[in-house]
Amino acid sequence: MFVTFLTDFGLEDDFVGTCHGVMKRIAPEIEIIDITHGIQPQGVLQGALVLANTLPYLPEGVHLAVVDPYVGTERRALALRSGDGRLFVGPDNGLLIPAAQKLGGIDAAFEVTNREYALEPVSATFHGRDVFSPAAAHLATGVAIEQLGPAIEPGSLVQLDVPQPEVSNRRIRACCLYVDRFGNMQLNLTREHLERLGIEPGTKVELELGSERYYAIAARTYADARAGEIILYQDAYDNIAIAISAGSAAETFFAHPGVDVRIRTAE
Amino acid sequence: MFVTFLTDFGLEDDFVGTCHGVMKRIAPEIEIIDITHGIQPQGVLQGALVLANTLPYLPEGVHLAVVDPYVGTERRALALRSGDGRLFVGPDNGLLIPAAQKLGGIDAAFEVTNREYALEPVSATFHGRDVFSPAAAHLATGVAIEQLGPAIEPGSLVQLDVPQPEVSNRRIRACCLYVDRFGNMQLNLTREHLERLGIEPGTKVELELGSERYYAIAARTYADARAGEIILYQDAYDNIAIAISAGSAAETFFAHPGVDVRIRTAE
Amino acid sequence: MFVTFLTDFGLEDDFVGTCHGVMKRIAPEIEIIDITHGIQPQGVLQGALVLANTLPYLPEGVHLAVVDPYVGTERRALALRSGDGRLFVGPDNGLLIPAAQKLGGIDAAFEVTNREYALEPVSATFHGRDVFSPAAAHLATGVAIEQLGPAIEPGSLVQLDVPQPEVSNRRIRACCLYVDRFGNMQLNLTREHLERLGIEPGTKVELELGSERYYAIAARTYADARAGEIILYQDAYDNIAIAISAGSAAETFFAHPGVDVRIRTAE
Repeated sequence: MFVTFLTDFGLEDDFVGTCHGVMKRIAPEIEIIDITHGIQPQGVLQGALVLANTLPYLPEGVHLAVVDPYVGTERRALALRSGDGRLFVGPDNGLLIPAAQKLGGIDAAFEVTNREYALEPVSATFHGRDVFSPAAAHLATGVAIEQLGPAIEPGSLVQLDVPQPEVSNRRIRACCLYVDRFGNMQLNLTREHLERLGIEPGTKVELELGSERYYAIAARTYADARAGEIILYQDAYDNIAIAISAGSAAETFFAHPGVDVRIRTAE
Repeated sequence: MFVTFLTDFGLEDDFVGTCHGVMKRIAPEIEIIDITHGIQPQGVLQGALVLANTLPYLPEGVHLAVVDPYVGTERRALALRSGDGRLFVGPDNGLLIPAAQKLGGIDAAFEVTNREYALEPVSATFHGRDVFSPAAAHLATGVAIEQLGPAIEPGSLVQLDVPQPEVSNRRIRACCLYVDRFGNMQLNLTREHLERLGIEPGTKVELELGSERYYAIAARTYADARAGEIILYQDAYDNIAIAISAGSAAETFFAHPGVDVRIRTAE
Repeated sequence: MFVTFLTDFGLEDDFVGTCHGVMKRIAPEIEIIDITHGIQPQGVLQGALVLANTLPYLPEGVHLAVVDPYVGTERRALALRSGDGRLFVGPDNGLLIPAAQKLGGIDAAFEVTNREYALEPVSATFHGRDVFSPAAAHLATGVAIEQLGPAIEPGSLVQLDVPQPEVSNRRIRACCLYVDRFGNMQLNLTREHLERLGIEPGTKVELELGSERYYAIAARTYADARAGEIILYQDAYDNIAIAISAGSAAETFFAHPGVDVRIRTAE
């Protein structure tokens, strides 16, 4: 049985290794796949988007995700079952919702309260270790999700506020959702948004970031532009992104999640 | 059989992957759990503390740890057996001692000298690959620890100098042991030290770092304070730590391991 | 069956985890060993050298490597078989060549074109996920390498331009190939180069980096010099490297890959 694992824990500290250890003590035979632990600290939105992007490429199993700024408060610990039978474990802050919706919708939701399936004593600050990892490991060994705690109304789950673009026929106001290692900036746009402005591979566009304007070209891949040119392209997860051919868009534009990007076709 | 693995090698280079490879060539059936490889370069004290903190959460097996500033000198390579039967492999610089003491004490110690269980030729600078990983892998396949080399007197093992706090009835002088990804500063204190000053969740305290003074509140978790407030809390490994609610204590205080922290109750 | 995996993807994003997922969906029983994902972005030369250095320490299997600045162009996707029977998968940019040459030479080469062994649709920018990982996983399950696509002439493979040192009897002009976490600078030199100048452990040498000159000592290991001394030594992969005992050569010299280093014996 596979457990996939995504957090904002980073790999500098022991947090990820300790959670692996906790799961392996409970369920030595499971196999853990680390999706990433590089989500920006407390970046719930980024974590939710990466989880939804990647799960279709991962084996089915138990999907454990922990980005948990409100650990120790009254926020609930969740176990969800999606329409296609996958299981999810994580905090009730919206983190799991986009992925579960993409994989068949939320079929059933439970609050993880049963201390039989937690480490005792549960610490105030590390529920990844004491609550979420044990719950995921027990699910992976075949414990029924109903055993973890009381059913809760899916409608009561905390929802994320995913920033929506403003799209007119002449102009798009988008925002940067995150930036990857190569400096590519993922936007909250799909190809359909660009098509409303008639933008397709080959179209010249004007980008406005802060008070600066730049010319860019809509392209299929990095290599469709000359080194240093700015491109607007559909990335491997079908989101629209900005890159600089043989360069780093994020460094050039000092871009970070939340930055506004305005797009229109160039004259 | 599990081998747990902790180093200061980082994940940018091939050091960790190469050691995995060496172990898997010797013992394809073992399972390696990476505790962390993010120990500060040559941070023997930090490595020792993290190992002692985390091993109780990890499966029993062979515990390999390498933070080895004196590689290539006469420092000994060690294999230890702790009172509860766990096996340890690493350099004789104190790295393994706090964990072994926590897990039943040091039952037996051996110097790893038998070249049958090393890679030949042993390089001068990468004993992680050539000495420690092979020894751990052979132990995991069932080689008796006595086969690795001669028994040594546990009393002759190099001990770490763990900085001790100065605690009076009015004031504590502590020090920062390490800083995590979230900017939380772990101190060389336990709850008992704070209790001697009557500090418990809810108590207002004064912190002195360098020449600056700050007000903080003793709390159970981050969320017990308002965003931006400084809290003093017992972390998930039962050490006292400093955090800033919804912020980074380490960034705010330019803190790093070794920094002095003075604590007293606020008027 | 083992699949080893080396990339420049880093671990901050989901790229590595997603590729693991893709391989595990195709071949749940394989075991993936991550050599490193910390190759400098688009550092094909560094990736090629690290792969050649490390593979002799890794179990035989399928060796997947992706450092792919020309993804989306006409560059070919390759599967190679080396003289000793190992299989390699990666882009045709020289990345695989030094390792394959070290392990028995290139016995046969194939262009990966068969879409039966790819994810459909193949994205324009993430062939690691859509082409290379699936090909490696299928090879690991026993698919014959000939099934992946047409044979190609080994002589037509893209070769790397590995910088060569200039060595006279009095002076060497070398270059820094890469820098590790500990600040050690690997040079494009072997012991034989130093021996031509009569340099052996104990010899005093003069290094010229940029317009600065430094005295160093040829040594066997870091501890053969006093803290702060510069040493020239044969590293664990038999390359000549520069280190500072108990310090970081790369930080001291602001060194990075490509930097020139001139070496001669000191008066």
